[in-house]
Amino acid sequence: MNIGIFIYRDAEVLDFSGPFEVFSTASRLCGTESPFSVFLIAEGSEAVTARAGYTVVPHYSIDDHPPLDVLIISGGVHTQQMTNEKILAWVKQQSEYVKLTATVCTGIFILAQAVESLSCSVTTHWEDINDLKAMFSRLDVIQGVRWVDEGSIVSSGGISAGIDMSLHLVSKLHRENLAVKTARQMEFAWVRSA
Amino acid sequence: MNIGIFIYRDAEVLDFSGPFEVFSTASRLCGTESPFSVFLIAEGSEAVTARAGYTVVPHYSIDDHPPLDVLIISGGVHTQQMTNEKILAWVKQQSEYVKLTATVCTGIFILAQAVESLSCSVTTHWEDINDLKAMFSRLDVIQGVRWVDEGSIVSSGGISAGIDMSLHLVSKLHRENLAVKTARQMEFAWVRSA
Repeated sequence: MNIGIFIYRDAEVLDFSGPFEVFSTASRLCGTESPFSVFLIAEGSEAVTARAGYTVVPHYSIDDHPPLDVLIISGGVHTQQMTNEKILAWVKQQSEYVKLTATVCTGIFILAQAVESLSCSVTTHWEDINDLKAMFSRLDVIQGVRWVDEGSIVSSGGISAGIDMSLHLVSKLHRENLAVKTARQMEFAWVRSA
Repeated sequence: MNIGIFIYRDAEVLDFSGPFEVFSTASRLCGTESPFSVFLIAEGSEAVTARAGYTVVPHYSIDDHPPLDVLIISGGVHTQQMTNEKILAWVKQQSEYVKLTATVCTGIFILAQAVESLSCSVTTHWEDINDLKAMFSRLDVIQGVRWVDEGSIVSSGGISAGIDMSLHLVSKLHRENLAVKTARQMEFAWVRSA
């Protein structure tokens, strides 16, 4: 299963490195029968400077990545992506193609901007709840939860909540026992209920 | 205060991105009076492929970084560093110079290998407790804790425990209230007692 994490300039570091750690650790624990292949995708193929000057090299650009099963959109300073027509078109196209689209933190703003028909329950960082409600009145924005699972759309709260959501996705897409073992390997106190 | 995080080939992704997120978020919350400058340091200046193919560009090499106040050594596949004389000499020299040396996960193996006189209480990933005891009998290896604070040497358990330890360091090096605010910003359930 191919898990693509979308990153961009000033994306929040833990929003993408947390889910990357979860899916890569889960795969490592399965040895040769690794259920997930996880990689970072950016608009171009050059290195991306995420928030606070943390520079990471994407595995693929939006023009050359393998077919995705899951798209994860990280949060951070997402504002530039909200008017980037190339990114919005790619997110819309991918969200129609993949099994599941997930967002971390303010990544939901990008997904909601790209997919006009999106009108389910979602969440985001506690600081951005009111902005999300104001900007997208068609969404049912839920506060005070680690993540919201609406089937093919799963959104998480801020920053570290993306780790809890990713463990939930391991459980949902593969099996619960692997998510439990992954959390134990990461010494992470997984909040299993949303 | 300059916080340098040492990374290397096959370092564990969350071991360095977690502490980076903590110190950079703590700084951001302080606005213009940012107490910390956090950066990644590698042996060379070229991009480093950490575990599972995650490639990050260090801010500095061990030959050109600014003077450090705190050195954080990440864990992961640390074995190659255990016989890397250039790295061991640099770690020893830095540990004598800085206010505080911290380790995440198996980073303690590198520190103990570099500093022969190290003989305090430490911890590591639960999977590596017995190896650490067997390899360094002069250390008092403690199991089942998030971190161990021995004044100028602070070591954490595995992977995500590095986030708890980093929040503790924000509290210790600056003030507790900033650590609480940082954990809240990260939506992280900080385990405040070791």
